[in-house]
Amino acid sequence: MKPVCLVIGAGAGIGGNAGRRFAQEGYHTVLCRRSNEDGLRGTVKTIEEDGGKASGFLLNAVDAGSIEDRISAVETDIGPIEVLVFNLGAQTGNLSLEATTLKAFELGWRLATFSLFRAAAMLCPLMAERGKGTILVTASTAAMRGNPEQHSHASAMAGRRMLCQSLNAEYAARGVHIVHILVDGLVDAPDTLGKILGPERFQELRERQGLEHDGLLLPERVADTFFHLSQQHRSAWTHEIDLRPYSETPWWNS
Amino acid sequence: MKPVCLVIGAGAGIGGNAGRRFAQEGYHTVLCRRSNEDGLRGTVKTIEEDGGKASGFLLNAVDAGSIEDRISAVETDIGPIEVLVFNLGAQTGNLSLEATTLKAFELGWRLATFSLFRAAAMLCPLMAERGKGTILVTASTAAMRGNPEQHSHASAMAGRRMLCQSLNAEYAARGVHIVHILVDGLVDAPDTLGKILGPERFQELRERQGLEHDGLLLPERVADTFFHLSQQHRSAWTHEIDLRPYSETPWWNS
Amino acid sequence: MKPVCLVIGAGAGIGGNAGRRFAQEGYHTVLCRRSNEDGLRGTVKTIEEDGGKASGFLLNAVDAGSIEDRISAVETDIGPIEVLVFNLGAQTGNLSLEATTLKAFELGWRLATFSLFRAAAMLCPLMAERGKGTILVTASTAAMRGNPEQHSHASAMAGRRMLCQSLNAEYAARGVHIVHILVDGLVDAPDTLGKILGPERFQELRERQGLEHDGLLLPERVADTFFHLSQQHRSAWTHEIDLRPYSETPWWNS
Amino acid sequence: MKPVCLVIGAGAGIGGNAGRRFAQEGYHTVLCRRSNEDGLRGTVKTIEEDGGKASGFLLNAVDAGSIEDRISAVETDIGPIEVLVFNLGAQTGNLSLEATTLKAFELGWRLATFSLFRAAAMLCPLMAERGKGTILVTASTAAMRGNPEQHSHASAMAGRRMLCQSLNAEYAARGVHIVHILVDGLVDAPDTLGKILGPERFQELRERQGLEHDGLLLPERVADTFFHLSQQHRSAWTHEIDLRPYSETPWWNS
Repeated sequence: MKPVCLVIGAGAGIGGNAGRRFAQEGYHTVLCRRSNEDGLRGTVKTIEEDGGKASGFLLNAVDAGSIEDRISAVETDIGPIEVLVFNLGAQTGNLSLEATTLKAFELGWRLATFSLFRAAAMLCPLMAERGKGTILVTASTAAMRGNPEQHSHASAMAGRRMLCQSLNAEYAARGVHIVHILVDGLVDAPDTLGKILGPERFQELRERQGLEHDGLLLPERVADTFFHLSQQHRSAWTHEIDLRPYSETPWWNS
Repeated sequence: MKPVCLVIGAGAGIGGNAGRRFAQEGYHTVLCRRSNEDGLRGTVKTIEEDGGKASGFLLNAVDAGSIEDRISAVETDIGPIEVLVFNLGAQTGNLSLEATTLKAFELGWRLATFSLFRAAAMLCPLMAERGKGTILVTASTAAMRGNPEQHSHASAMAGRRMLCQSLNAEYAARGVHIVHILVDGLVDAPDTLGKILGPERFQELRERQGLEHDGLLLPERVADTFFHLSQQHRSAWTHEIDLRPYSETPWWNS
Repeated sequence: MKPVCLVIGAGAGIGGNAGRRFAQEGYHTVLCRRSNEDGLRGTVKTIEEDGGKASGFLLNAVDAGSIEDRISAVETDIGPIEVLVFNLGAQTGNLSLEATTLKAFELGWRLATFSLFRAAAMLCPLMAERGKGTILVTASTAAMRGNPEQHSHASAMAGRRMLCQSLNAEYAARGVHIVHILVDGLVDAPDTLGKILGPERFQELRERQGLEHDGLLLPERVADTFFHLSQQHRSAWTHEIDLRPYSETPWWNS
Repeated sequence: MKPVCLVIGAGAGIGGNAGRRFAQEGYHTVLCRRSNEDGLRGTVKTIEEDGGKASGFLLNAVDAGSIEDRISAVETDIGPIEVLVFNLGAQTGNLSLEATTLKAFELGWRLATFSLFRAAAMLCPLMAERGKGTILVTASTAAMRGNPEQHSHASAMAGRRMLCQSLNAEYAARGVHIVHILVDGLVDAPDTLGKILGPERFQELRERQGLEHDGLLLPERVADTFFHLSQQHRSAWTHEIDLRPYSETPWWNS
């Protein structure tokens, strides 16, 4: 039986590419995303055409019980989850303090922090019992410093980071490896950056900074590092790592 | 008319002592705490006997609208709030991941992060309009690193810190000064530490480490620095500061 | 006998103003600077005209034995040093890696790190014996992150910061209080910023951003916080603090 | 012609194992260490018996010109250096402030900071001209926080870290990738840990915590991550990463 890699937040960027990479390496990849059933089916199909094994489910992570039920079903129907790629974004755009409703502020937390807690609360005990498991958490610059108009996002992503540290503090010695992966730059992803910018501005940006310039993070290259981290020997585990294009100024300089 | 200092989380420790100090310096101090009406009246009375001006209200910060209504009422009935001492704790004790219910995890966030957002959302625009205001936020080590059995607390206090940074990023240049004050050690406070330990163990600890040993943070001495920060000239503002007893190992060494 | 405050790096900015403030509060201030004997005499005279007590010495901190000899002489001739304001700058301007000679790189370290070590190696044991003493260390953004063309400065100021942490780790519990004070912005100081920019551009900047705009750190207001830190009760000591103008973007956002 | 990997600090731990790994991957590995010519020849021989290509040189990094001359000679005689593994330790043992001589303090800096500057000053311009190069820098916990009796080591390793950040800030966009790799735990290495503890205590520790327990960093597994970092696509580069055994408490918790 293949080991299982569950991807929560499996759009066409980091999530989908990580899923594809794990499938290539012999995992049964389970892809979950909130919407776009066609996109989801497309990723599953691509993986299968590569000779890999994949399943896809729509999942609204903020719905009560949604993550928990999906994890249970995967464990029962497909197999024990060895790797969780937790790639749920929580960027809701720039909103001044006055424009940030209570609901919007809370939503950021539900997406960035609470949903990871819910997934970890299900999976860590299972992984600890098996003495083996990896949780790869996509993080963003907002985890490291606040910004204007990022009240919800910054506080929620900081909560995600400290949650990763608490989880490691409790579970690493029991064989569960949690990695906080700071993606510090724009990702060449049609589903996220592409939607924020719209197709024309996205293409313009790709031509100016991406493509052969490599100034946007290529999600398949990000996936290389995700995969490497999942395979680290337990005598040399990474808890925190950053990733950015060579041409990008790190968050501490910009 | 006296300037107003609102204290949210005004027990017998840092909150009450900061309130008392601001009253001594000429502020009308408005004290809010969740429970213990007798304790609240006692603090108000002590301030009045010192010749200061104080009001006291019970306030359950997690109730919808509670902070907002109190701020409105103070602004209308007492005067413009010049200083907010935001001293709400969110320590709910050590709980393993498996013992942390969804409700408990969320409560930590409601206390540590969301309540500060709600207070800031009310006050920052008012302060910015007046071109003047200070928000002093009590923080804890959990903001800086995760710990086992601190999943809720660490992620929520980290959220508080990044929220402070975002608020400053949006409001500092408009005259609103937010300070994240990391209290990195045990506070000699009967309402918090005293309750956690019980009266006997608390007294024992005071005799061993506190009192003339000064190895517990004395809340009236913490209040000295709170007051200093509120009076900093706008050409030299502090955003982040730590406080600990001379004999205490800092969080980064322990 | 008055307590003694020794200022190393006592130009017309933070150092001179801190010295003046300590003198006003009853300290005998000993001012040391590398050059400009007239400026030094002027500061001493101003303090004396205020009714304070001051002495002034030229001191080339990088000369072997210079700091050590000065500290010995002050301890013998004037009195036990209670406060050291260590305000030596190490900014040698922007230099690309290729333009940074071995000598220039080393000089940054000698100024920023080694000279603090030498001062601390003399003073900490004396202060520990007396159970009392404060070392206030002026720090800069370079301690927190690297920058292009700041190879010497950034590595040397980071060395200064970690040295402060090690000194506290060894001496705080013995009564010696070391504070790393991050000055994160331009200081309205003719001797440093004024010399870098030249008189015209300096005056232009002051008119645009400083003066009534308060967008440059006023050294006499910085001195307020230096003095406060020196008076903190040992139950509530600060190890690290930042200072910047209200209108300035913090280092983590710029 | 094979690409060249130069290892500075090539003992039997991380340095030697990284060298071996790069040789297995097709690099001509050039190993440099201060002493133990037999050990050096042994590592070269082991690599050659694996079918790899290696050269070895004794190098006292603190000697003026030593690093510079070695780099020049390698570039001329062997080929362009594509990867530098900079693995020079600077741990000189625990020394109280009073026991730390000026010379000892300076030596820490010469080993940890200055020698990296000297290597980078030679190599970065060459690598930038070729548009390609990687510098992998072994770092230690001392870079992140001070400790008692670590005055030299902590300040010197912090200097190393900020130097890495400055180098990246100036050279990353020109194709030179510098990575600060925080090794946060004890390494199962006879040349370093083994020498500090002596053979008996080292073996005892290995039996208790290392070997099948994996509680000491295995240098060949550390080398896996070193190699991965050297191969990252330039659209997704890591600047900072940590490594520790699964069972080890991270520096921020200990």
